[in-house]
Order: sequence, then structure tokens, then C-alpha cells
Amino acid sequence: MDIKQDIGKRVRMLRKQRDYSQEYFSQLCDLDRTYIASIEQGKRNVSIVNLEKIAKAFDLTLSELLKDI
Amino acid sequence: MDIKQDIGKRVRMLRKQRDYSQEYFSQLCDLDRTYIASIEQGKRNVSIVNLEKIAKAFDLTLSELLKDI
Repeated sequence: MDIKQDIGKRVRMLRKQRDYSQEYFSQLCDLDRTYIASIEQGKRNVSIVNLEKIAKAFDLTLSELLKDI
Repeated sequence: MDIKQDIGKRVRMLRKQRDYSQEYFSQLCDLDRTYIASIEQGKRNVSIVNLEKIAKAFDLTLSELLKDI
């Protein structure tokens, strides 16, 4: 798997762990739902600014978000 | 400071710690020297694919690269 797929798998796992829908999670991140969906499918080369939004929405540091990747 | 500046400061500190020139480090990363320079100046919204290249060049995981950010 490449890094985009690893990130996608990690985001999906963290989101499901918290029982967030993609819609709810996209609002928390202030990102578009379809963008979140494509990240989870491993199709996005996510930027650090958006990674920070995602980490904050999970109440994690960037380092915690990328743990084990 | 915003996340781009935080990343820039971190990359510069790690590079200097290893006494790498920007030229040498850019070759390790397989990224352009001017791109590395602009990252260190906090001007780049670096993507995860390039962050992975940088982490590998420092022989760090992504999580280690982004520690304390």
C-alpha cells in the first residue's frame, strides 16, 4: 500500500472508532464530505494544512494521527 | 506560527542537526533544492507524499518527523 492508502485507512479507522458519519466528520474538519471520502479511498495526496484540520477534528496531534504509518 | 512555518523550522533543525547542506538533503529526498528551501521558509503546503520522502531521508517515521508540531 502507498502512503495515500495508509492515510485513508487510518482516517477511516479513527472516524469509525468515534462513530462519526463522513458528513459529521467533514463538518468537524471544515472539509468537503466528498474530499473526506476520496481521502479514505486512498486517492488524495493530502496536504499538511488539511492533515492538521483532520488531526484537530480527531483531537489528536499530527504525530498521533500518523502513528504506525 | 502556522503549520507550514512549523514544518519549515522542524525540517531545517533536523537537516542542520545532521550537518546536511540543502543541496545534499534535496538529493536524499529526490526533491528540488529550491523546493526544500521554500519548505524551510514556511512557504509550502507540503503534501503527504513529499513529507514521506523527507521523513525517509532523515530516517524517521512520519510521526517522528511531526513530533512536537
